[in-house]
Amino acid sequence: MRRKVYVEGERPDIRVPFTEVVLSGGHEPVRLYDTSGPGSDPEVGLPPLRRPWRRAGTQLAAARTGEITPEMEFVAIREGVAPQLVRDEIAAGRAVLPANVNHPESEPMVIGSRFLVKVNANIGTSAVTSSVAAEVDKLTWATRWGADTVMDLSTGPDIHRTREAILRNAAVPIGTVPIYQALEKVGGDPVKLSWEVFRDTVIEQAEQGVDYMTVHAGVLLPYVPLAVGRVTGIVSRGGSIMAAWCLAHHEENFLYTHFAELCAILARYDVTFSLGDGLRPGSIADANDEAQFAELRTLGELTKIAWAHDVQVMIEGPGHVPMHKIKENVDLQQEVCDGAPFYTLGPLTTDVAPAYDHITSAIGAAMIGMFGTAMLCYVTPKEHLGLPDRDDVKAGVIAYKIAAHAADLAKGHPGAQAWDDALSRARFDFRWEDQFELALDPDTARAYHDETLPAEPAKKAHFCSMCGPKFCSMKITQELKEYADRGMRDKSEQFLASGAELYVRPS
Amino acid sequence: MRRKVYVEGERPDIRVPFTEVVLSGGHEPVRLYDTSGPGSDPEVGLPPLRRPWRRAGTQLAAARTGEITPEMEFVAIREGVAPQLVRDEIAAGRAVLPANVNHPESEPMVIGSRFLVKVNANIGTSAVTSSVAAEVDKLTWATRWGADTVMDLSTGPDIHRTREAILRNAAVPIGTVPIYQALEKVGGDPVKLSWEVFRDTVIEQAEQGVDYMTVHAGVLLPYVPLAVGRVTGIVSRGGSIMAAWCLAHHEENFLYTHFAELCAILARYDVTFSLGDGLRPGSIADANDEAQFAELRTLGELTKIAWAHDVQVMIEGPGHVPMHKIKENVDLQQEVCDGAPFYTLGPLTTDVAPAYDHITSAIGAAMIGMFGTAMLCYVTPKEHLGLPDRDDVKAGVIAYKIAAHAADLAKGHPGAQAWDDALSRARFDFRWEDQFELALDPDTARAYHDETLPAEPAKKAHFCSMCGPKFCSMKITQELKEYADRGMRDKSEQFLASGAELYVRPS
Repeated sequence: MRRKVYVEGERPDIRVPFTEVVLSGGHEPVRLYDTSGPGSDPEVGLPPLRRPWRRAGTQLAAARTGEITPEMEFVAIREGVAPQLVRDEIAAGRAVLPANVNHPESEPMVIGSRFLVKVNANIGTSAVTSSVAAEVDKLTWATRWGADTVMDLSTGPDIHRTREAILRNAAVPIGTVPIYQALEKVGGDPVKLSWEVFRDTVIEQAEQGVDYMTVHAGVLLPYVPLAVGRVTGIVSRGGSIMAAWCLAHHEENFLYTHFAELCAILARYDVTFSLGDGLRPGSIADANDEAQFAELRTLGELTKIAWAHDVQVMIEGPGHVPMHKIKENVDLQQEVCDGAPFYTLGPLTTDVAPAYDHITSAIGAAMIGMFGTAMLCYVTPKEHLGLPDRDDVKAGVIAYKIAAHAADLAKGHPGAQAWDDALSRARFDFRWEDQFELALDPDTARAYHDETLPAEPAKKAHFCSMCGPKFCSMKITQELKEYADRGMRDKSEQFLASGAELYVRPS
Repeated sequence: MRRKVYVEGERPDIRVPFTEVVLSGGHEPVRLYDTSGPGSDPEVGLPPLRRPWRRAGTQLAAARTGEITPEMEFVAIREGVAPQLVRDEIAAGRAVLPANVNHPESEPMVIGSRFLVKVNANIGTSAVTSSVAAEVDKLTWATRWGADTVMDLSTGPDIHRTREAILRNAAVPIGTVPIYQALEKVGGDPVKLSWEVFRDTVIEQAEQGVDYMTVHAGVLLPYVPLAVGRVTGIVSRGGSIMAAWCLAHHEENFLYTHFAELCAILARYDVTFSLGDGLRPGSIADANDEAQFAELRTLGELTKIAWAHDVQVMIEGPGHVPMHKIKENVDLQQEVCDGAPFYTLGPLTTDVAPAYDHITSAIGAAMIGMFGTAMLCYVTPKEHLGLPDRDDVKAGVIAYKIAAHAADLAKGHPGAQAWDDALSRARFDFRWEDQFELALDPDTARAYHDETLPAEPAKKAHFCSMCGPKFCSMKITQELKEYADRGMRDKSEQFLASGAELYVRPS
């Protein structure tokens, strides 16, 4: 059985949610990180949890003065670490706590390499398909399965209204790419974009409560020709828009030239920068090329400017990268961005499997997470083919929760393995219901088991349909334990005398 | 369009199949490795392709004398390498070419770290479920999607008949675990097992044409207590059977004590050893422990004995292993087994996602492939929960083809990236049909695209439903190319004059 429990902080209004999995037979319950939020009526929205904690100044500014904010205390409980660690990592720029003062509905969370690896899910309308209600449903669905943040990538006519509905129902931080809405405002013509239109759009979105914004300020005019010889050119929407603007005006990217002004705006709301990788590779052939790394070095410069304004920063990363070139991305990013959190899309480790890019990219995501990436942007099975529906959102989130948890294990995150151990013990003991409830996706695990053995007694059976009753279970290990205790000769006789029952199952 | 083509060898009866993907607009066709076989009527079986090449002595014996057999020439064409390389790798024991003289229907293939990473699919009846016809269908289905070998893990009453049907319809090597059938012969009681029953079973299966056999000869009596303290004990069926036998008799494993006799039998048919890892870890907690590595060292000893008998050998590996412990497995295996091919189950990189273990394990499989594993044994979504059906077989094979190809890219296998590049070029040019045909799974890629944009013109459209027509396509890169040629000033004017059309799409 699963239930929601809350752990209180020093202040009584800090109540941190966990999913508690209650196990059978007196086994210790297991607490899992919970992103699902308190649940909302879409017409009403969520309660403004963080309103009493509202402050002037960013989490970064507070951390630098040595303050532990309620948000920091909240995430310390959530992560099972000391609040001082949270504060110090934020103060050093190695972690961000995206929490717009105008999005009080969000439950605080932290993104940084010393913490649990996080997962972002992209949703959003396009001109071709989708609706506001469908997007709010996708938001709720994505966080139910474990999305730590959600990006609203809506294009088309209803951007403002869609975002409002998402924010008021989001218990997780919401990210956007403001250039999309700015482009809508100028009729879709990138040449008509200007700093002023962009600035006003950022203020509009910051007022609404957007927690982090992707800004392609590193796509500089001299870098654009570097993408010419590529197999897949520029594949980032925002990157292409800015490249087109730079070419048309033959001027430097206005996001770069006005970056300090932008910092001043973001600081006012505590919006976190997500510095976009507009020149990320869109194919294996283009990975780790000069265009990509030139932009990354510029993002390093911009990181320092943002920090000077007390604005939190994370850095976006690729894209399509073969496995042997993944580590270089993290190492270079950590070096040139002074340890600012890395936030990567996949990477996809091969181009040949459209319809399965949640898998091609989960491989790369797990690896890049192990190497130190703080947040993984999911990829769904529809990538390259269409807009994800509800099922795709779930498939993407699950694949990425797997990648993130595998990375947590590989990094030795304290407590990460307790979940694996609890599930494996349940498996070994044939506590089927415990195994299902501990699973990342209890519904599907239970359904798969029931396909061949639906009857209730099978839930307590010491076998499953993989091997059948004769071959199954691990009772032999019980025998082995006694054997080790009593010595081999005795045990051999006892084993024979007991009928030498065999319990086995494949891993 | 896809079509099957054959490349002839020096001998006219060497005809190596490829899938040729014919592209539009004069682009070079792409040839893909093809495991689907010529297609058979299950009642008749496949033609005995290799009968004219029948020989006394194993491929290893031939390679050691410097001979290039027709099988070696076949696989050299298949892999795009020199036949001398194939011969030399087999002679050194670093590659195997599993080809029982009594399975002439199989198309030769090679397993070794210098060649393309291979994928095995497990099928087979259990006492609870499945039928002979269903298993032959799964075989055909698995090889259609790219399985390089298939293991028949049948238990229950119909083992011999099921295996016969599979072998006569298999264009790929077939592996088995003979101890399963031996156990059936003694009524399911492991204590009644004996060398004689096992030997007769091996001969029966070798006569039928089984190409490689898993033998758990490394589960030694003194190693069994090492598994006592584990979270999940012994999870290998064969390992548990042998452990039970050792305990009951307090004698050393008869597969170990009779290993030289076993080699003499396998040599007669050129059956390849797949030395089983009966003590592989069944959970993250048990990875890389002393039980596992003690057995591995014994497999190293046995490898040398098999080689002394001219018998080909590969070594089975784990299991459940967190990412940071994967490389140690390959390094130790390569060291103690003198470079014999490693053949691993996954490994699963976390225990928490039953119903998604094709993904938890594809992550580990891709990594272990990159580190040098020669063949990956697939894991399906039903792992730990039930017997895989047709859909699960496909899901498992696809996930593992992705892992194997990602590993080929990371290892820099010559020619591997040509497939990615061709698909990415098609993607960039909006040649939708070419992209679908080049996809690992054209059916699903096409179906996903059609969900939102089913109309035929959309197949030629320079956009998809992800971004809609206004935001999409990469025409901008065409502009960039001209721009680079003509200089930036000119281009800026021209770009404006042309209406500054914007074509973008996300990666």
